[in-house]
Amino acid sequence: MSQYTPSTGPRPVVAIMTDFGLGESDIGVMKAVIIGIIPDAQIIDITHDIPPQNVPLGAWVLSYGYRYYPGGTTFVCVVDPGVGSSRNAIAVHAGDWYFVGPDNGLFSYIYAQQVVHAAVALSNPAFHLPQVSSTFHGRDIFAPVSAHLARGVALHELGTSLDPRALRRIDVGPPERHGSHIDARILHVDTFGNLITSIPLDIVPDLFTSKHVQIVFLTTQAVVDRRKRFFAESPGDDQPFIFGDSSGYVGVAVQNGSAARSLNVSSGAPIIFDIAE
Amino acid sequence: MSQYTPSTGPRPVVAIMTDFGLGESDIGVMKAVIIGIIPDAQIIDITHDIPPQNVPLGAWVLSYGYRYYPGGTTFVCVVDPGVGSSRNAIAVHAGDWYFVGPDNGLFSYIYAQQVVHAAVALSNPAFHLPQVSSTFHGRDIFAPVSAHLARGVALHELGTSLDPRALRRIDVGPPERHGSHIDARILHVDTFGNLITSIPLDIVPDLFTSKHVQIVFLTTQAVVDRRKRFFAESPGDDQPFIFGDSSGYVGVAVQNGSAARSLNVSSGAPIIFDIAE
Amino acid sequence: MSQYTPSTGPRPVVAIMTDFGLGESDIGVMKAVIIGIIPDAQIIDITHDIPPQNVPLGAWVLSYGYRYYPGGTTFVCVVDPGVGSSRNAIAVHAGDWYFVGPDNGLFSYIYAQQVVHAAVALSNPAFHLPQVSSTFHGRDIFAPVSAHLARGVALHELGTSLDPRALRRIDVGPPERHGSHIDARILHVDTFGNLITSIPLDIVPDLFTSKHVQIVFLTTQAVVDRRKRFFAESPGDDQPFIFGDSSGYVGVAVQNGSAARSLNVSSGAPIIFDIAE
Repeated sequence: MSQYTPSTGPRPVVAIMTDFGLGESDIGVMKAVIIGIIPDAQIIDITHDIPPQNVPLGAWVLSYGYRYYPGGTTFVCVVDPGVGSSRNAIAVHAGDWYFVGPDNGLFSYIYAQQVVHAAVALSNPAFHLPQVSSTFHGRDIFAPVSAHLARGVALHELGTSLDPRALRRIDVGPPERHGSHIDARILHVDTFGNLITSIPLDIVPDLFTSKHVQIVFLTTQAVVDRRKRFFAESPGDDQPFIFGDSSGYVGVAVQNGSAARSLNVSSGAPIIFDIAE
Repeated sequence: MSQYTPSTGPRPVVAIMTDFGLGESDIGVMKAVIIGIIPDAQIIDITHDIPPQNVPLGAWVLSYGYRYYPGGTTFVCVVDPGVGSSRNAIAVHAGDWYFVGPDNGLFSYIYAQQVVHAAVALSNPAFHLPQVSSTFHGRDIFAPVSAHLARGVALHELGTSLDPRALRRIDVGPPERHGSHIDARILHVDTFGNLITSIPLDIVPDLFTSKHVQIVFLTTQAVVDRRKRFFAESPGDDQPFIFGDSSGYVGVAVQNGSAARSLNVSSGAPIIFDIAE
Repeated sequence: MSQYTPSTGPRPVVAIMTDFGLGESDIGVMKAVIIGIIPDAQIIDITHDIPPQNVPLGAWVLSYGYRYYPGGTTFVCVVDPGVGSSRNAIAVHAGDWYFVGPDNGLFSYIYAQQVVHAAVALSNPAFHLPQVSSTFHGRDIFAPVSAHLARGVALHELGTSLDPRALRRIDVGPPERHGSHIDARILHVDTFGNLITSIPLDIVPDLFTSKHVQIVFLTTQAVVDRRKRFFAESPGDDQPFIFGDSSGYVGVAVQNGSAARSLNVSSGAPIIFDIAE
């Protein structure tokens, strides 16, 4: 995890993450609403390819990148299977950043990693679009609220104050290390076919110094026990290896190939990690 | 349809929609041309995933989002199977916005919904790139013209005035409602697999108040007669239901699933909609 | 190839090209790092869909668009199978632009087409993030260096000067024309399924004036000998034809269809081009 904390710049930053994909005009419309309110916003797309309605994966993707954004950035995040229901729409001030979205656990890693200064339910319609649909709160509530936050509206003006302890959380705890043994799983298969495990590098500081490390994939009984510090480290063959992913988690990769394909493993697969000192 | 009309901001907005995809460098090049002319443009991508050369779908996607853009926004839209032929390249001032693209019907909904103040054929080469190819007018004509418009060049300087009534139109009329009966079709399958019908919510104000509503899919004889106001409304099963899509049209969805897959229906499929008071 | 050279604008431009895809949060994080350093940067995505680790194709995609970017633009390009190894990270001032990325041949077309004024190895950690991973130099080195360049840091401050002649090059020479005959190949299949050959239009100025032109696909023995100046030129059938692609290369297309599918040809396929005066 990085200790990089850039200074706040003069242009307000709004970062957007959704599961909408880029095939519709929805993301463009959200940006249009934002710049209609704050014309000089610097808008950054985190990603819009969170698998549909996968709140845990959305929470994780947000978690390993937000620290790189300037202090003061407003994150508007929409992975929202409960849109239109009674789930709260919220804005949260945590660490140096603001987070706007549904109260469904999407910000669980943030709550675990940062001090939550304040949180509100977005109950003040003055900061929403005049007409709020029951299916697209990204456009009608979250985008305008994020723009108002970015232009300096105080959090408490946006609605009713919430007790930070009452915010909805999903389990984001890392797996436990029992001496040399960790029961874990594959969190994510990335664009290159690399397998990202649920094991934070933090809990295996001895990843590259211990005598032996192995990952057993329970579904196939495949074993990977080679380690590389970087992809191009020799030998340059097509055997899978363990590495430290830039997200801050243990990964498994194949040089110039897809570990997911080679090992026939997909997201969620259970693994056993063993390390011999 | 929204009645939201944001005020014009100090940074000129250019919104781009194409069928180019993001796999090539074409969209980047169009943006480079635009900021070469107007460096502080705020550029927004509507979408670049219009199915190749599908003018009717491009026209529809543009139609349900443009109202959310600030007044003064210049839309540059390129779905252009006739590029290089004798079809006109045009710029149109309609409602509070400007539209730049080929004269092939892509702006038909705009003409139907807004007052067209003026239109020109882009015949003045002073506002094009010095070399105009016969295959990429997005880069060579539409991008620079949109940038010049955004920096304040008057519409009439861009070329020869056109009679707005002579602009090319495709049929964008909604299906007719005959009492309780509408013959319609599936306009679009969205990212989530939701089916968007050609029936505007406007013509079925009784969608949620009538006693019974049903959609029959003519290709499979499947019938959907359940309604939900929002996705998470109970019951939370995997049966398809009718809802009001945020685009302003009647939709059919499955909670946490794909209605297109469940119902084995794709874009263009004919449907019969019946409503019993 | 265009002779268009836009003037430098007041907002510094950073253009990004990678093979990361948009499915992860990596591109967003790179942009966050950039605007943490230079808040009013105008950031443009060239594309992020270079096929993973395909340096030659990345080099080519960069080559046909960069001239359209304003003078002074900093290009940060990451197709980097050697990340973490001893390959240099570099910044290059060539023509009117700056290029930042790995020294693996990605800028070979630039070196062939522009005067290289200066080049440095990015050895000065003052312009990197405080922690540099061994797998994500895009975030940790290339993004911050490009931002510092864009805000005006002199090239030589970024690290050790390199002899431009020692920069890593891949073969980007066009195929040779022997009178009426050219041995070439398919460089790329674009979004529309058009086949882009390795033959620059420059070496076939007689493409549309000669009596006869044909391309033989060696893998299938298919022959294409029809030419069109633009896609909608008659006849409007589904037979493949030869055209001049806007990238500056000879292409093969099918009107309203995919030449790759019709001809069963993919990237890399060898072809023979013959032209009869």
